[in-house]
Amino acid sequence: MTDAMPVGDRPVPLVVASPLDPALVDVIRAVDDRLEVMFDPELLAVPQHASDHLGVFRPLTREQDARWHDMLARAEVSFDFDRREPGSFARSSPNLRWIQAASAGLGQALQQYELDLSKVTVTSAAGVHAEPLSEFVIAALLYFVKDIPGLLQKKRERDWTRHTSRTLYGRRVAVVGTGAIGSRTIAKLQFLGVETVAVGRPPRPDEPARPERITTDRLVEVAPELDALVLTLPLTPATEGLIDAELIAALRPGCIVVNVARGKVIDEPALIEALQAGHLGGAALDVAWHEPLLPESPLWSLGNVLISPHSAAMAADQNARIVEIFCDNLRRYLDGRPLRNVYDPRRGY
Amino acid sequence: MTDAMPVGDRPVPLVVASPLDPALVDVIRAVDDRLEVMFDPELLAVPQHASDHLGVFRPLTREQDARWHDMLARAEVSFDFDRREPGSFARSSPNLRWIQAASAGLGQALQQYELDLSKVTVTSAAGVHAEPLSEFVIAALLYFVKDIPGLLQKKRERDWTRHTSRTLYGRRVAVVGTGAIGSRTIAKLQFLGVETVAVGRPPRPDEPARPERITTDRLVEVAPELDALVLTLPLTPATEGLIDAELIAALRPGCIVVNVARGKVIDEPALIEALQAGHLGGAALDVAWHEPLLPESPLWSLGNVLISPHSAAMAADQNARIVEIFCDNLRRYLDGRPLRNVYDPRRGY
Repeated sequence: MTDAMPVGDRPVPLVVASPLDPALVDVIRAVDDRLEVMFDPELLAVPQHASDHLGVFRPLTREQDARWHDMLARAEVSFDFDRREPGSFARSSPNLRWIQAASAGLGQALQQYELDLSKVTVTSAAGVHAEPLSEFVIAALLYFVKDIPGLLQKKRERDWTRHTSRTLYGRRVAVVGTGAIGSRTIAKLQFLGVETVAVGRPPRPDEPARPERITTDRLVEVAPELDALVLTLPLTPATEGLIDAELIAALRPGCIVVNVARGKVIDEPALIEALQAGHLGGAALDVAWHEPLLPESPLWSLGNVLISPHSAAMAADQNARIVEIFCDNLRRYLDGRPLRNVYDPRRGY
Repeated sequence: MTDAMPVGDRPVPLVVASPLDPALVDVIRAVDDRLEVMFDPELLAVPQHASDHLGVFRPLTREQDARWHDMLARAEVSFDFDRREPGSFARSSPNLRWIQAASAGLGQALQQYELDLSKVTVTSAAGVHAEPLSEFVIAALLYFVKDIPGLLQKKRERDWTRHTSRTLYGRRVAVVGTGAIGSRTIAKLQFLGVETVAVGRPPRPDEPARPERITTDRLVEVAPELDALVLTLPLTPATEGLIDAELIAALRPGCIVVNVARGKVIDEPALIEALQAGHLGGAALDVAWHEPLLPESPLWSLGNVLISPHSAAMAADQNARIVEIFCDNLRRYLDGRPLRNVYDPRRGY
């Protein structure tokens, strides 16, 4: 879908392809009478936790499978991806023009689907995770700066001697990635008295310069003065392995690393080595190279590591927020106005 | 000292009565040539941690004791209290007109000293703890809301299954005490998207109403709608036991309590019972009824309790900030202008 045009009077078949609360499907239905919302929880994965869009698949009977493929065949709009058969999603859905993903990041997901992006627009749920993820970043930084592990140790020892920690106030923190999550994180940190360094990708030739942020190629220069490095950037070919051994070595001793981006943006073995050697003060990791994190990973047993199993974006009201974005985009789609959060293959997000 | 008047040309003897970094004593000396700063670390307590103003006392030789008493006898201004002989501080210092305390809270300290407050002005270091304490409150709230204990448990079990927690964003938090610490806490919470309820003492007849805050007598009415209750109020006869069993019972189930005030503002046995019963979601306690917290206290072994041994105000740069307040007050004292943070016996802080 390269040209947006108003839908007019025709009906718009819409499939809900990943688990969603029925009450929120009603919210989608209420957007417009032209929408033909196809939703059958029986055919979808079974969510394993609140706001789970992956879930566990049940085998479908022949009849169920036929119904599911009929839905896919008719759908012009899809809420999220059909993860049951990623490789045949495009062939099963020849009428598909737009997929609204339920995740903020798309790079990895899109590799599994053979979508013709000249025919199908993909929009992300970028922004939905900004509040919970920026909160996780603040929680993780305070966990280390206020030395909560030290407090828990004192509690185990019933030791009431004074415990001196640092303040987050006055520290210098770089936030790599200046999308919704990074921007919200920077705003919160600044309000808490933190000196922030915003780090973005180098602008393309057709883009204006952004003097308020430094570019990723200059990160190594500021690394020695950082009390913490926060990663909120998308995973793209340009960002894979961006935080490499050289950069990690350049960080100020005692620096804290918080990764709420994707595991592959960081050289995980180099990170582990720096944590083991005591070069880094701590790491809070919401993501890993291999997920689930392998049971033999040294990260599990390192005392100065906080692990969040790709859960920092999880919040009880997350689906309601994703549906808010979807409904706004649905109105734009029906009116022929440009959609928000459109995936751009050039940028990779 | 009821009337402030300019000092004129006369020298002002000033004793440093609790441990302080020599570099910061130089900062005090640099304020004005009229100051005769008496500072001898040999005569003072030995600090046990950064910014410790209590310390451990060494026995003084007869000669040292004479020197110390000579200092006290001459002092017109004292930085902090002589804790070696609290009961005789007033008699030992007949010329004393002003004590600048190194702590934000004074109620308990002043009970130990027999000071004639019509002759001696006492100023607190109120404000110095606002940054570290408000940070501790945020850290503690995020610790429980983001369920860090649950993440640590999953880490011990090497369990990479999704972990759903709540957001601090959107929660409702009451902050009892609207001084420097409470106000800074409220500002931070609001920026993080928290709905705050400011709770202050009822105004005296001569004070204007403060419509932006509710008074402590109405706390029980709002209790059922609170996700967290944060205590930053001073301990006074009016606030002792303010958070009683009835109020604790009225709190919304799962409510989090954070106490950075004084242990005695809360009914500790009732708090323990509510934590044991699972009525409260957690408690972060920087203070206790008896400090050090007794080894047999059930608080040590309760999983939903974070204990900070009266340390939340501790920060590496704390003394520098206390000295900033002192220097500002010294300039006011020398000029005969009103001092900041003057202890008011009517209010009790």
